[in-house]
Amino acid sequence: MKTDQKKPTAILRMHCQDQPGIIAVITEFITTNSGNIIYLDQYVDRANGTFYMRVEWELDGFLIPKEKIIDYFDTLYAHRYGLDYHISFSTHRQKMAIFVSKMSHCLYDMLSRYQAGEWDVEIPVIISNHPDLAYIGEQFNIPFEVVPVTRDNKAEMEQKEFEILDRYGIDFIVLARYMQVLSEEFMARYPNRIINIHHSFLPAFIGAKPYHQAYERGVKLIGATSHYVTADLDAGPIIEQDVTRITHRDSVSDLVKKGRDLEKIVLSRAVEKHIQRKILTYNNKTVVFS
Amino acid sequence: MKTDQKKPTAILRMHCQDQPGIIAVITEFITTNSGNIIYLDQYVDRANGTFYMRVEWELDGFLIPKEKIIDYFDTLYAHRYGLDYHISFSTHRQKMAIFVSKMSHCLYDMLSRYQAGEWDVEIPVIISNHPDLAYIGEQFNIPFEVVPVTRDNKAEMEQKEFEILDRYGIDFIVLARYMQVLSEEFMARYPNRIINIHHSFLPAFIGAKPYHQAYERGVKLIGATSHYVTADLDAGPIIEQDVTRITHRDSVSDLVKKGRDLEKIVLSRAVEKHIQRKILTYNNKTVVFS
Amino acid sequence: MKTDQKKPTAILRMHCQDQPGIIAVITEFITTNSGNIIYLDQYVDRANGTFYMRVEWELDGFLIPKEKIIDYFDTLYAHRYGLDYHISFSTHRQKMAIFVSKMSHCLYDMLSRYQAGEWDVEIPVIISNHPDLAYIGEQFNIPFEVVPVTRDNKAEMEQKEFEILDRYGIDFIVLARYMQVLSEEFMARYPNRIINIHHSFLPAFIGAKPYHQAYERGVKLIGATSHYVTADLDAGPIIEQDVTRITHRDSVSDLVKKGRDLEKIVLSRAVEKHIQRKILTYNNKTVVFS
Amino acid sequence: MKTDQKKPTAILRMHCQDQPGIIAVITEFITTNSGNIIYLDQYVDRANGTFYMRVEWELDGFLIPKEKIIDYFDTLYAHRYGLDYHISFSTHRQKMAIFVSKMSHCLYDMLSRYQAGEWDVEIPVIISNHPDLAYIGEQFNIPFEVVPVTRDNKAEMEQKEFEILDRYGIDFIVLARYMQVLSEEFMARYPNRIINIHHSFLPAFIGAKPYHQAYERGVKLIGATSHYVTADLDAGPIIEQDVTRITHRDSVSDLVKKGRDLEKIVLSRAVEKHIQRKILTYNNKTVVFS
Repeated sequence: MKTDQKKPTAILRMHCQDQPGIIAVITEFITTNSGNIIYLDQYVDRANGTFYMRVEWELDGFLIPKEKIIDYFDTLYAHRYGLDYHISFSTHRQKMAIFVSKMSHCLYDMLSRYQAGEWDVEIPVIISNHPDLAYIGEQFNIPFEVVPVTRDNKAEMEQKEFEILDRYGIDFIVLARYMQVLSEEFMARYPNRIINIHHSFLPAFIGAKPYHQAYERGVKLIGATSHYVTADLDAGPIIEQDVTRITHRDSVSDLVKKGRDLEKIVLSRAVEKHIQRKILTYNNKTVVFS
Repeated sequence: MKTDQKKPTAILRMHCQDQPGIIAVITEFITTNSGNIIYLDQYVDRANGTFYMRVEWELDGFLIPKEKIIDYFDTLYAHRYGLDYHISFSTHRQKMAIFVSKMSHCLYDMLSRYQAGEWDVEIPVIISNHPDLAYIGEQFNIPFEVVPVTRDNKAEMEQKEFEILDRYGIDFIVLARYMQVLSEEFMARYPNRIINIHHSFLPAFIGAKPYHQAYERGVKLIGATSHYVTADLDAGPIIEQDVTRITHRDSVSDLVKKGRDLEKIVLSRAVEKHIQRKILTYNNKTVVFS
Repeated sequence: MKTDQKKPTAILRMHCQDQPGIIAVITEFITTNSGNIIYLDQYVDRANGTFYMRVEWELDGFLIPKEKIIDYFDTLYAHRYGLDYHISFSTHRQKMAIFVSKMSHCLYDMLSRYQAGEWDVEIPVIISNHPDLAYIGEQFNIPFEVVPVTRDNKAEMEQKEFEILDRYGIDFIVLARYMQVLSEEFMARYPNRIINIHHSFLPAFIGAKPYHQAYERGVKLIGATSHYVTADLDAGPIIEQDVTRITHRDSVSDLVKKGRDLEKIVLSRAVEKHIQRKILTYNNKTVVFS
Repeated sequence: MKTDQKKPTAILRMHCQDQPGIIAVITEFITTNSGNIIYLDQYVDRANGTFYMRVEWELDGFLIPKEKIIDYFDTLYAHRYGLDYHISFSTHRQKMAIFVSKMSHCLYDMLSRYQAGEWDVEIPVIISNHPDLAYIGEQFNIPFEVVPVTRDNKAEMEQKEFEILDRYGIDFIVLARYMQVLSEEFMARYPNRIINIHHSFLPAFIGAKPYHQAYERGVKLIGATSHYVTADLDAGPIIEQDVTRITHRDSVSDLVKKGRDLEKIVLSRAVEKHIQRKILTYNNKTVVFS
């Protein structure tokens, strides 16, 4: 852990039309008010003429009180420069719910990071449409709620899920090989706040049984893709992808096995970036700051 | 270069229904006749119950004369065990034609390997639908034939190409970013003997402008795929694929640039495997022996 | 899971001086006795003139009774052809002990695979020189033995460890970021049966604090290496390695974090190959069959 | 090519002690004087408290005349804020000399990029200690100077090389598998301006015959490293590295072959970053901006 990250900070993520001097304007706002910038990354998408930036500064000694920062920034800068922005505070520890079905590898990978204190997040609940992995909730002492969604009872069951999510004050959701498609209402409640792992190199092999599809096509690499969930299946903004090499010797079950390692690493990398508030979404794409 | 590869060898590539003792049968044929096996690789596709093998042995001291090997093998083994096989001889130096349009990176990559003596192949001719790269033919002292194919004159121009290919005794063809689709007649003349490079990770981004498609989709890796050409566009048996990481910072022209390095390496790897007779094709897939 | 792997099999791993007909001899032994070969891989190291092979065949229907196979093979083949060989049986489920200190990522990764039934192995005990991770033993209901080795009491403490290992009938040991150097006596008891993970791309950054060394040197990739433990520190036969890209932006703690994902995957891949009896060791190197 | 990169620009690379407001200060200097920033990347090394930045802005419309920029910047900023900086102009097309011995793969790779117009650089001369590759100079119509350096005549021959380098106004040098060690005098003339490719994953396998060393050690990946040349052999600041997977089946000559593809790509990536003035060197490391 970087010790300097433990001091309370404010995090600004923004984009706007590219314009001269915009970096100077923002950084001056911070330094003039005695803020110590500990992170700044920006880039300009020249094709669209759009400017993107993430700035993080320490709150200790910052002249504007924390509860007035958003108000001041909004008044003095956001309107004037046409900024689309979001300010968050490191002192707010986000709450994350994990949805699973029957496969444990992604769940274990995240919980072992959580248990080791790698992630600055809270995981108050695991939700599943099957009871199979309830023992893992017990192992890690995390409430495991079974909500047996089927095609026919989805609307009703999702109401139950909303109740659970609200009860635990959930900020964002991770689908860890959760095998149910969410309703549009569900997605609308958590825009850019539901992360899924798809077990292929999207946009190849959309939909069901991607490893079977990959085997049939005879590809020489298989992949995994983590993305934000949108109404269009497997078509949301991609956060992270990776691949691994296979050969003609690999059967479908070998692909499934090799794929598991990809899936868990690719999903955990995406979740970590989300926790760190390093992702900015636009035009169905992501800017993932380093 | 491995010195032992310079001795004349026979190369058997075969597949058949899996059956007990098939390896013993084939290897005994060779060793009983005093052949020294310098390469053997095989594998069984359990899903289909199919056995695949590549064996290479030295001709020096082999009791069956070279010109009778195929006849003997066919009579004694192929029919009896239901083998689908191909025997070739390292003494036949294959002739390869390269088709290009306006981009030079794949062409240069192959010619520099050729000039350095890395490949046991002959490249007697380059064919192009544009004169732009004729200077490269001159640099490497290789005839460069311009055959200006368009949508309207394809049948006629392909006859010209066939004449050129026949004149030079071409064994197989490499499409090095050649921007014309071949006719079915063309493909039928060179089954599993036309290698193409597609500038995406197939089956993602089939067709035109894959880098633009990749940029629009916001993927985090781009790829390249070399494959044998079949009637179904970009859907032939895949020989080799690779990917490279990109970020939100990369414009379409950055993708094109990063992609060039992928394309040339992925194409050259495929061509090398073909030259070494290490590829076996079945069910629209490839077995690529190591 | 491949269903065909569940039938009992015999596994022969061998090497010998390369000699004509050796494949035919071995495969004939199996097929003549009605054995069904389900795996065969071999290769010849031409530099040393050595032949390596792994063959696996089903015991059902094999004419030689299981308990006599080794005797027959030894008498009829091993002496005659000068084979250095090992025959094992899939019906023997190996017992594996895990040694840990204070870091949990490799331990969790292995236990989650174990719990999910991915590995055909038994893990009856975890041994540690610290009590810190005892809770993980509890989570997975595996005995966790604390043996507080220090520099001064090593001989005595290792006797305790031997007693534990013998009590559980341990076949091989995995050092999952275990921070103690084993004595030569210890290593001699488990030749090629202790697997370690070193957190660098060996032979770069041997010894302590490899991530600090990597940071100081300014490398652009960091790696991890799993290997069999030998008397020479970090110099045993390498089983598996992998790397990940870093940049100037990564601090030492970033390297540690990125490295954890490498370490656990690289270690688990090695352990899996060992469990599958796919590794053959010679000349301080490994042959890892696919 | 990005069209916007073709407008004349100024490029500032700098580092200094980290201090509040430094980004605002620099960006204000540019925007106040009507400069349009088209690139800005910076980062803070918290371990050392050092701030690094690269800024690029268009000269068209910039209120300070090009020939006075360095003077103004030096007076108004460099001293005041303790900056270690370098300002260059895109209008200066750098001149690069390539040194080779007998291997052609890196040379061809660079010349094919050069010929295709990928690199904004001029290559007026190739220098070699052997005449073997003179034909490539002819192919690309680039003067090829043979300077037959040996251990005994190095001082004298290097004087010849200096004369050639001066005659062509060379800015930086690329050693493309050049097999001679340069004298300290030579290195001192081109600090951080000589790029070498070493055919291993440094710091593993320093010195001669790294592929033989890798083979002996039994590694599972081989690498290549491009770096600036310093007095300490193979120990200069690393610019770029990459690796490729090998197996026990690969002989030394296979490693050499697989390595060639790594070497040429890794070297060309480093050269490109140097041409783009994206590299900043400090503490025997590099910052390579994206």
